[in-house]
Amino acid sequence: MNYIDIIGLTAGTCITLSTIPQILKVWKTKKVKEISLKMFATLTFGIVMWIVYGILKNDFPIIITNSISLVLNLIMVYFIIYYEKE
Amino acid sequence: MNYIDIIGLTAGTCITLSTIPQILKVWKTKKVKEISLKMFATLTFGIVMWIVYGILKNDFPIIITNSISLVLNLIMVYFIIYYEKE
Repeated sequence: MNYIDIIGLTAGTCITLSTIPQILKVWKTKKVKEISLKMFATLTFGIVMWIVYGILKNDFPIIITNSISLVLNLIMVYFIIYYEKE
Repeated sequence: MNYIDIIGLTAGTCITLSTIPQILKVWKTKKVKEISLKMFATLTFGIVMWIVYGILKNDFPIIITNSISLVLNLIMVYFIIYYEKE
């Protein structure tokens, strides 16, 4: 693994894990009114498309990182829909 | 361009543009208390790393899509810092 790979891996890890602080914030406050469902729904759709792309190209890193992103973003989508009703 | 490229392009476009509804929501409401600055700061750092990766690999699509993402995410970071003070 060269330094370019490490930069790519750092980028992917940051982007994948970035949803976690937002999940924790909603988990604590139970407030989602200011958060855009459209944003997380569009993101989730894009991530599913990346996974399909990764499967078709047999690109394992794309499949793995986006699968983690998918789970995290689905949690956010669920939170937004669930807490918006309350 | 084959159908796999189109899927990849759709994925990238969705993810890049997903920030726009959140920007518009904050623009209208001026409220950011429920939105995680840590999320958008981590995202922005990850996107900068992707641009560096794209430059080092001479990968034009990565540079272009992430540059648009960078602008959109910087707007969000600015909004969160600016409106949090109000």
